[in-house]
Amino acid sequence: MHLNHYLDHMFNAESVAVIGASNVLGKWGFGIISLLLRNGGRKVYPVNRKGGDVLGAKAYRSLGEVPGPVDVAVIVTAVKDTPAAMEDCVRKGVKFAIVISGGFSEASEEGARVEREVVKIARQGGIRFVGPNCMGHFDTYTDFFTIPFKNPVRKGPVSIITQSGNSGIAVFAQGWDMGLGFSKYINSGNEADIHFEDYLEYLGQDENTGVILGYVEGFREGKRFLELAGDITKRKPVVIFKAGRTEEGARAAQSHSAALSGSDAVSNAAFRQTGVIRVQKIGDLVDTALALVSQPLPRGRRVGVISMGGGLGVISTDALRKLGLEMARLSPETIEKLNSVMSERWSHGNPVDPGGDPIIYPCIWPLLEDENVDAVMVVGGVGMVGGLTALMPIPDLLKDDYARFMEKSEREMLADLERMMDMMKRHRKPVIAASMVSGSVVKSRVYEKLESNYLLPYPGPERAAKALSRLVEYSEYLGIARGK
Amino acid sequence: MHLNHYLDHMFNAESVAVIGASNVLGKWGFGIISLLLRNGGRKVYPVNRKGGDVLGAKAYRSLGEVPGPVDVAVIVTAVKDTPAAMEDCVRKGVKFAIVISGGFSEASEEGARVEREVVKIARQGGIRFVGPNCMGHFDTYTDFFTIPFKNPVRKGPVSIITQSGNSGIAVFAQGWDMGLGFSKYINSGNEADIHFEDYLEYLGQDENTGVILGYVEGFREGKRFLELAGDITKRKPVVIFKAGRTEEGARAAQSHSAALSGSDAVSNAAFRQTGVIRVQKIGDLVDTALALVSQPLPRGRRVGVISMGGGLGVISTDALRKLGLEMARLSPETIEKLNSVMSERWSHGNPVDPGGDPIIYPCIWPLLEDENVDAVMVVGGVGMVGGLTALMPIPDLLKDDYARFMEKSEREMLADLERMMDMMKRHRKPVIAASMVSGSVVKSRVYEKLESNYLLPYPGPERAAKALSRLVEYSEYLGIARGK
Repeated sequence: MHLNHYLDHMFNAESVAVIGASNVLGKWGFGIISLLLRNGGRKVYPVNRKGGDVLGAKAYRSLGEVPGPVDVAVIVTAVKDTPAAMEDCVRKGVKFAIVISGGFSEASEEGARVEREVVKIARQGGIRFVGPNCMGHFDTYTDFFTIPFKNPVRKGPVSIITQSGNSGIAVFAQGWDMGLGFSKYINSGNEADIHFEDYLEYLGQDENTGVILGYVEGFREGKRFLELAGDITKRKPVVIFKAGRTEEGARAAQSHSAALSGSDAVSNAAFRQTGVIRVQKIGDLVDTALALVSQPLPRGRRVGVISMGGGLGVISTDALRKLGLEMARLSPETIEKLNSVMSERWSHGNPVDPGGDPIIYPCIWPLLEDENVDAVMVVGGVGMVGGLTALMPIPDLLKDDYARFMEKSEREMLADLERMMDMMKRHRKPVIAASMVSGSVVKSRVYEKLESNYLLPYPGPERAAKALSRLVEYSEYLGIARGK
Repeated sequence: MHLNHYLDHMFNAESVAVIGASNVLGKWGFGIISLLLRNGGRKVYPVNRKGGDVLGAKAYRSLGEVPGPVDVAVIVTAVKDTPAAMEDCVRKGVKFAIVISGGFSEASEEGARVEREVVKIARQGGIRFVGPNCMGHFDTYTDFFTIPFKNPVRKGPVSIITQSGNSGIAVFAQGWDMGLGFSKYINSGNEADIHFEDYLEYLGQDENTGVILGYVEGFREGKRFLELAGDITKRKPVVIFKAGRTEEGARAAQSHSAALSGSDAVSNAAFRQTGVIRVQKIGDLVDTALALVSQPLPRGRRVGVISMGGGLGVISTDALRKLGLEMARLSPETIEKLNSVMSERWSHGNPVDPGGDPIIYPCIWPLLEDENVDAVMVVGGVGMVGGLTALMPIPDLLKDDYARFMEKSEREMLADLERMMDMMKRHRKPVIAASMVSGSVVKSRVYEKLESNYLLPYPGPERAAKALSRLVEYSEYLGIARGK
């Protein structure tokens, strides 16, 4: 049976048993069963040697007692009990296991011995498994969650393979704040059976996955990774954060996931050749994915900046230049068009600064129409979301005026936003926004529309510029953008 | 009269007039008068040539009509009307003006001419002024706000001098999210009269200011800045973000604040010699200030890391090493102590990873007691705030158990936090926390206590490590920490 068939079970199980399900708050076996009982529509069987019930559901003393078939078993037992649990799975005819338990090769020699034993039992019994020492997985399309606790997560096109459970959770937790949506999450753990590369191959073919993110400490099949990645990046982007970049970090990685990190420079070169987008932080995974799912790939490096105030223009220029992007030279026609919408105080060049007036969208059209501009970055107090007015205290006697003003302004902004998205598609130019005061963004209908189109502003021009530079990098790799 | 006396007026005015106060939503003259009428307890006089009333307060047709004395005038008129407004101030005996209006030397030759005229009128009339082309100022201690709109701001020890209004606003907006408190904000604008250096000298002596932050595009009195800074940094930290670092950024800065940026490398060297902490982003100003107001200065670069999960340990190690900090070698006694609080699965070294158990505070005590450790960094799902349990779905039948569990856990954590703050003081070691899932931090009493002590976790180990490295840098400058 092909591995992909096993992995279909992993994401599509109709029945699942949790060996080590628990009523004790704070235990991993509690969090997992609790999530499973609340999500999905599949059969869920708690297995606990004491029997009784778990969270109101009948608990079975052993897997053998479970009445129906079991597609997937989640194993949360102590290390020493894991070989027996895997044997139970073989006897029961389980096809796929998720071994959460820790204390294996990452912890000690004895742990490594038990891990080898578990692999042997699984191989002989025809079972494939994730882990051990992992924090499970999820699939938002089948509503199947085997992680022990979770932040809220939105359904969407981004999938994550991670060698660190917490780092993966951080990706979708931070993704939530940025409005990003996820399809699948896999914490590969010690990769005793299935490797990072296997999941990558699967997601490369998965139609619910549009962007693949990876947190990696080291590859068990480096050559295969590069071959796979080189193939997949032609169809969908692969973004990797490889940790263990310093000598000490690599040492810490080795004792964590037992993965050899190798030279950082070598990884860099290899990634670049295969079109993998390499990033340096958890947050960069999120920021890059957000740009990839919402923006057209630009045809060059020339950026037009619209900044609310000159200071933000200076900061944005620095940020873009440091990343090797270029400040577009606006054509005389563009200057003319901008003259017609702003007062004389505007900066008359790139960055475009309206000089105190709260003008945003009308500055975007001329830049998108300018052949000298490949991408637009909008940096302002509240991004493209509201206006200065949202931050002003409104006296009671003007409340009605204010409500009318805001309603009109919202209606106009929604129409402008629609127009912007049309123009982005037509001209194939990204429009990346940054906000300096994210905390106070008004949750208006404009905000909702930005969010549902993955267009929420980045917190700060540096993050926006970095995301844009990744788009350019990928676009150049694919031959859509001219190279440097 | 010494400039400081004028600046006392700026922060302590008993009466203020707004020339150009307006009822029109969205106008700067609207936002400013609206804030002034709601804050403080001082006399506020709207001046509008049409008379009538502004936001329910009687409006005067000219400054001359205002019945009582006026300490400070805020000028929001059009460029061409500004000389006349300044003349009115002279006639009225106003001591200090805040010129918000833009369109002066930053915009055109004609604007520069008018700016010189305004300076001349003010000089001859004995008036000092901020701006023009600025976004006002505030003082949370006197509750005096002349900015045209604002995010919420907390009273505290940090003051900001900024050559960009929006960048300064971003500092206290982002500071709000991080729990930071502010004393004074000054947007110096074009600095036609008072210079950045003047405000710096004032804040150096201001007892409500414990940390001085600056956003700078260029210095008008570079030599004086260095002399002042060298003197002040012996008493209180000065943190500067200098924008215009790239050639194109410097060009944008010149057209924004008409400031010459000079060489970036030269600034760097000069800053270092005078003990100025130089940062590279708006967010770094906030992060550095937060560490400076809450943490003891460390006596060296050796960091002990506690990480929830191995992956975060790897990321943290990379982040610290890249900044030149060192991974502390834990003493055998510390390893013993840690053995006694954690299961065998713990990492048995630095970074300290409990291996799946939600243990945080008990790992901190041994590190603070270890002579090989100069500082502690705690990186986890929810920082030092809650535990995994906060993210677990709780079934109804366990709600009571859960409430008891959380209540007990909160009580313990509050006691632990108290103990940690005591130990930080006693051992003079910082404890910097980072959270990977800031959005979901539970707003508990623990959170409130962390917040009121400026101890909220940084979003991500990179930001925590950077803040820590600034503490080390400043500590080395003061001779408290051993150098590299």
